[in-house]
Formats: sequence, C-alpha cells, structure tokens
Amino acid sequence: MAPGEPIECLAAIAWEAKKPLDVTKVIVAPPGPGEVRIKIIATALCHTDAYTLDGLDPEGLFPCILGHEAAGVVESVGEGVTSVKPGDHVIPCYQAYCGDCKFCKHPESNLCISVRAFTGKGVMKADGKPRFTTLDGKPIFHFMGTSTFSEYTVVHEQSVALVDKTAPLDKVCLLGCGVATGWGAVFNTAKVQPGTSVAVFGLGAVGLAVIEAAARAGASRIIAVDINADKFPAAKEWGATECINPKDHDKPIQAVINELTEWGCDYTFECIGNVAVMRAALECAHRGWGQSVVVGVAAAGQEISTRPFQLVTGRQWKGTAFGGYKSRVQVPQLVDEYLAGGTLLDKYITHRLPFTQINEAFDLLHSGKTLRTVLTFE
Amino acid sequence: MAPGEPIECLAAIAWEAKKPLDVTKVIVAPPGPGEVRIKIIATALCHTDAYTLDGLDPEGLFPCILGHEAAGVVESVGEGVTSVKPGDHVIPCYQAYCGDCKFCKHPESNLCISVRAFTGKGVMKADGKPRFTTLDGKPIFHFMGTSTFSEYTVVHEQSVALVDKTAPLDKVCLLGCGVATGWGAVFNTAKVQPGTSVAVFGLGAVGLAVIEAAARAGASRIIAVDINADKFPAAKEWGATECINPKDHDKPIQAVINELTEWGCDYTFECIGNVAVMRAALECAHRGWGQSVVVGVAAAGQEISTRPFQLVTGRQWKGTAFGGYKSRVQVPQLVDEYLAGGTLLDKYITHRLPFTQINEAFDLLHSGKTLRTVLTFE
Ligand SMILES: NC(=O)c1ccc[n+]([C@@H]2O[C@H](COP(=O)([O-])OP(=O)(O)OC[C@H]3O[C@@H](n4cnc5c(N)ncnc54)[C@H](O)[C@@H]3O)[C@@H](O)[C@H]2O)c1
Ligand SMILES: NC(=O)c1ccc[n+]([C@@H]2O[C@H](COP(=O)([O-])OP(=O)(O)OC[C@H]3O[C@@H](n4cnc5c(N)ncnc54)[C@H](O)[C@@H]3O)[C@@H](O)[C@H]2O)c1
Ligand SMILES: [Zn+2]
Ligand SMILES: [Zn+2]
Ligand SMILES: [Zn+2]
Ligand SMILES: [Zn+2]
Repeated sequence: MAPGEPIECLAAIAWEAKKPLDVTKVIVAPPGPGEVRIKIIATALCHTDAYTLDGLDPEGLFPCILGHEAAGVVESVGEGVTSVKPGDHVIPCYQAYCGDCKFCKHPESNLCISVRAFTGKGVMKADGKPRFTTLDGKPIFHFMGTSTFSEYTVVHEQSVALVDKTAPLDKVCLLGCGVATGWGAVFNTAKVQPGTSVAVFGLGAVGLAVIEAAARAGASRIIAVDINADKFPAAKEWGATECINPKDHDKPIQAVINELTEWGCDYTFECIGNVAVMRAALECAHRGWGQSVVVGVAAAGQEISTRPFQLVTGRQWKGTAFGGYKSRVQVPQLVDEYLAGGTLLDKYITHRLPFTQINEAFDLLHSGKTLRTVLTFE
Repeated sequence: MAPGEPIECLAAIAWEAKKPLDVTKVIVAPPGPGEVRIKIIATALCHTDAYTLDGLDPEGLFPCILGHEAAGVVESVGEGVTSVKPGDHVIPCYQAYCGDCKFCKHPESNLCISVRAFTGKGVMKADGKPRFTTLDGKPIFHFMGTSTFSEYTVVHEQSVALVDKTAPLDKVCLLGCGVATGWGAVFNTAKVQPGTSVAVFGLGAVGLAVIEAAARAGASRIIAVDINADKFPAAKEWGATECINPKDHDKPIQAVINELTEWGCDYTFECIGNVAVMRAALECAHRGWGQSVVVGVAAAGQEISTRPFQLVTGRQWKGTAFGGYKSRVQVPQLVDEYLAGGTLLDKYITHRLPFTQINEAFDLLHSGKTLRTVLTFE
C-alpha cells in the first residue's frame, strides 16, 4: 500500500472494561506531522494492560487499543520526522523522550513531558485526535502512546526507539516495559552497589528482572519474597540467594527480614503494586541508609503510609517509572546488551501465541503461571 | 573537690510529665569506666525536652534530668577514657559516635549503636545504673545520654565532642542539636546543589538553620512557610527569597507551591513535626527528582502517608537525625567554622536566663516567640 494511505488491519479493541477484547479489523490513519506508523511484529502483555482492561484505572478511556510492550518495523513517517525511516526496526516506548524538555535534560529523570498531555488523553498531539477508527468510522483511543495490540499503530516520534536490525523483535519486545523496568530500578534508581543485600517483593517478570540486575550489580545477598512458592525455582535460577513465603510466618514479613538480616537490607524493591507490601519493603530497608524502591503500580486511590521515624532513622523511599531509562537513548543500548549476550531476556518468555488468541493470553496472565506471553502477527 | 568523689550541685528534676521542673540539689556520682563528668557552662532548650516534659514521648522515663543542647568543661574522666581530659571544652552529643560500629563505619550514617540501648533506658552502659541521685538517695534517670539541665552531668565517652578552647561555650552550645540539625539536613542529607529551589516548612531555629545552610549552599530560590507571620522577617534575614503563610490560601500548601514553581522544589524540608505537613512537603518536591527531608519529630503513633504515584514519578522521601553529622568528628568542625566566621549562630540566641529560671525558659519556648533561650550557671 502507498504511504500516506489509511491501512486496514487486525487489532484488538477494548470496547469497555471487564469485557474480552474484540479481535477485529480497524483503520489506521497515515502518520500526521511528527508521527510514525509502525508495523508491529510482536507484542507482549503487561499488568498495566490487564489493570486498565479490568477497569481499575479511573482514567482509562474506552474504546481503546491497549498494548505497550512490543517491537516492530517503521511502515511510514509523517512530515518532519527525521530520526527514523521506513524499514527501521523500532521499539515503541510509552515513556517518551524528546531530549529537549526540562525532564529530558535532567540527568536523573526520564519523565519527558513533550507528549504526555496527549498520550494521557488517548490522542495525538498534532490534531488532538486518535489515528484509529472502526471500519464504520468510530474513533478509537490510543493507550499509553503506544497501542501495540494492533498490526499497525501510530505513535509520536518521541516514542520511538530505533534498535539494531539484527535483534529478534519477538524477544526484544520485552524491553518496552517490564524487564527494562526491573533492570533500571536496580541500575538507575537504586544504583545497587557490589557486596550489598537486596530484598525483592513479588517474583513476576519485573521482580525477576530486579533479581537479575541485582546479581549483575554484584549484590551478595538477594532475598526473594512471594506468596506463591511456585515462583521460587525461577527466582533461584535468576540469582536469589534465599526465598521467603510470607505465608510461612506468623509475623509481618518486614519483621522476618529484619530478624534475618539484623538491620534490614541495603535495597528493597516492591514489584507487586500492593501498598501494604510497599510499607513492609520500606520497613525492612537497612536502618541508616537503606533505600526502598516502589516499582509496582497500586490501585487508584490507595495510599502508602509508615511512621516518620522510619525515615528519620535513615531509610529512603523512592519510586521508578520505566526503571529511569531515557527511552529513545537507552532502549537501543539495552538491545545491544542483549545482543552481546549476558542477559536473561529470553527466559522471561514463557508462552507464545498468535495475536488472534490475545484473550487466552490475558487468561494466562491472570493465572499467575506466566512470566511473559509474546503474541505475533502471522 | 577531689576527682572520684560525688558532687552535690544544682539540677532541674522532671519528677513527672506536665509538671514544672524542680530546681534543686542532686548528687552526681563520679564517672564510671568509659565515662566523662562534665561541668555544664551553658544549656539551651530544644523541643524534644518540651515534648518529653509534656508527656508526649510514651518512652519518656521519670524522674529524669532533661537537656541535650549544651557545652561545658570536663571535670573528671573514668577509667579507660583517653579522648578527653579534665579542663577540656566539650559539647555533649545525644547522637553518640564510637567510630567502630557498623553505622559509624558507614559513610552515610551517624546512627551509632555503641551506647544506644543504655541511653534509651536512661542509664549508663558500665553498670546499667544512672549517675544521678537525690540528696536522700533516689535514683534519677538520664535523658538522651546527655542530661544537661544539671551543673554537672555524666556521659559516655562516645557522647563527648572535644571543641576548640577559644569558642564561647554559651554560644556553641547550640551546635549540640537544633542548629546543627538544620545545617546537616541541607549539607549531608539532601546535599543541596547551587542554583536549586528549596521550600522550608516551619521557621523555628531548625527551619532557619535549613534556610541559612541552603543559602550558603547556593540555592537560588528559598521559599519559607509558617502559619505564624511573625517568623517572616527573620526568615528573610536568614536568606529566604519569599515567605508564604498557608492561612492566606484556601488550597493546600503543596498546591500553592506547585503553582508557584510549576513542578515543585528541588528540595523540601519539614521542620515542624506535623505529619500532614510532611505529606505536603513531599507533594511539592519536584516531579522527577525532588527530595523531601523529614526533620521534625512527630508525636508518637502518628503516621505519614501519600499516594505511591508521588514516588513513582520521581520524588524521594528521606529523614535526618542530628543532620547526619557524625558527632564527635564533625561537631568540632562546626565549632571551627563558627570561629572562622560566616555562620549566623549568634542570631539564634534570642533570650538568655540564669539556669534557676528554667521554667520561665520553657514558657518562652511554648510562647513561639523565641528561637533559642540559653541558660547559664552562675
Ligand atoms: N513502575 C513501572 O514503570 C512499572 C513498569 C512495569 C510494571 N510495573 C508494575 O510492576 C508490578 C509487577 O509486574 P509483573 O508483571 O512482574 O507482575 P506479576 O503479577 O507477574 O507479579 C507479581 C508477583 O507478586 C506476587 N504477590 C502478590 N501479592 C503478594 C504479596 N502480598 N506478597 C508477596 N508477593 C505477592 C504474585 O504472586 C506474583 O508472583 C505491577 O504492579 C506492574 O503494574 C511497574
Ligand atoms: N531530626 C532531628 O534530629 C531533630 C533535631 C532537633 C529538632 N528536631 C525537631 O525539629 C522540629 C522543629 O524544631 P524547632 O526548635 O525549630 O521548633 P519551633 O517550634 O521553634 O518551630 C516550629 C515552627 O513551625 C511552625 N508551624 C507549626 N505548625 C505549622 C504548620 N502547620 N505549617 C507551617 N508552620 C507551622 C511554628 O509556627 C514554628 O515557627 C521539632 O519537631 C523538633 O523536635 C528534630
Ligand atoms: Zn508495562
Ligand atoms: Zn522530553
Ligand atoms: Zn534537640
Ligand atoms: Zn558507633
């Protein structure tokens, strides 16, 4: 098809919360100024997709096309786009990077604001409209500025990371969210030092990625915590030195860890999205200097709390979004690291399905038996 | 009197919570092994004394001798004490430093544990007993390992900072707590950088010391917040660039500051002890990298809370105890800095009284019209 033409293709529409996705044809408009149209090759599912589909995000907009952990090939670019061209291999990034705003320029932040106001509303910056419509012309909102549950999607140029053409797209798609987040929480947010102790709460893909990175950073003690003991073999394989199930103890998990370690762990990571566990993680960070990093995303309206004495005696409470990676600059580097070997990326892919079976992939996600399911378009 | 003998001297006994102090004679035993007996020359009052006397500390032990912001001269030393000798000028430090424990050895912590278990119980480590008794032999507990509301006191060697003999003790006594805490919160805990923005909540001695240090650190914008507008002239004099009274606004103070600054302040400091203000301070720390430091001590049992989203979008929550200074090493350096000029230390002393008028000094403290009242023994 000629560039500049609308494309009719397969997508999964979320018509409303708590309903299965509708796998059907949609029309994807050509990219507007500053936009890129991408042919998605592979997309994984992440909890934020499920969270929104479950209606837990009060700002979730319907109908929409979900999906934000993917990789693909540039199909065409809109006016003024210079950083990618048709045929380039790319990872769409929900955390944009313009290089120019206050946040991009700051060495310690990746919270670019260039397109945030629009991606938050499910539309494109150029005209405030979405690029997706049903065959009979109903507009469908974008999601997280990525909408990768579609054979073709349109994203802002600020959301496109150009990656090495030799990288397998059906693997590096995972670098679009969860695995990168876990790695970055360790390397960028906490800056874990060699010889230190780490506790990781929640052993999904994000928690395992934290374990992987902590082991690579040289942590000497890595305590893995989950209420599902089936997660322990993987945690050990990834680098955990011990595994704890809170259900095996009759005192709070922070008390268990403080007893084990005497003063707590140098770094603790919450990778669940449970505010009670966020508190526990803070309260078993080491007295004097322990850092606790919130990685999990809590349900809307929930709050974390603790006694301020926990902070006055030296603990620090932090959080991370996309692991602090400046997406367009650093995702390509993560792909290069993967290609150089030495990461466990392949192991996070526990299931593969054709895109048309996306609802089964959601069931797998909810079953707690998967790390990541990768969907591919045939 | 010969060293090794008990000393009879004036002290202020807190017999129970919410009662005025009893200014009377006590017996101060000679220093045991590893202990130092100090003749107190000047002592100021701090909020922690008032807090305990008001019965707000559920672990407060009575009867006791309060006081922890003072300076004096070593009268005698116990067996094995080598770091100070009679005649040395010293500042008793409630935050001890042994140089040898895990916390002293860590570059980022001052929370020495060498004598903590004993000072917390109002007794000395050597025999688990206090060194104070009434004239008829009733034991009286120590407080914070310092008990400076007495003409003579006995402290652990780990709690004694040796300072320059030329320093005026009735001024540098303030370096034993509040002023040092405010400075250290800026230099050690937050490490404020030049050209940044700062918000300070609460403009008592601690908040003003934060302003003083932030100005010295080169902060370009210093927003001072207090519900008592009488505090604003001093705040301006100390270095605040603007002053805000939350009572003049009908929205939460964090919203006011976020509007003024667009994204919040690079550093915020709570210097009150109010958990609602601790939350406000966090929530007007800069998106992406703002740090909020809890300096104030909240009432027992109170908790801080916020939405975890505040952390996930880059804010950091921290706290400080004695400004992070390693007391025996760094208090002498603060005294040297004072002697070299360039600090505002003298200005924090708004009132002076003889020790015998200590109850009036507490009334002044509660009036909100003082920064620090210094009491001296004639
Ligand atoms: N901050 C970010 O940028 C970012 C990015 C990606 C994902 N996330 C969030 O990270 C979290 C983890 O994602 P994931 O894909 O690994 O999820 P997951 O559901 O696969 O893993 C969560 C794990 O936590 C365990 N768990 C649940 N309750 C527990 C409890 N009380 N104590 C101990 N363990 C418990 C579960 O058994 C499961 O193994 C989610 O909240 C997700 O939204 C955040
Ligand atoms: N962390 C430490 O090591 C340490 C050391 C010393 C003191 N402190 C604590 O620091 C705090 C401040 O000490 P200080 O001596 O400066 O006290 P202070 O009472 O002299 O000053 C407190 C100021 O806060 C203002 N204030 C009260 N409520 C307010 C509100 N809601 N909003 C804005 N301003 C408000 C008051 O008007 C007053 O000016 C106390 O809690 C004290 O216990 C902590
Ligand atoms: Zn995700
Ligand atoms: Zn930007
Ligand atoms: Zn004090
Ligand atoms: Zn020590």
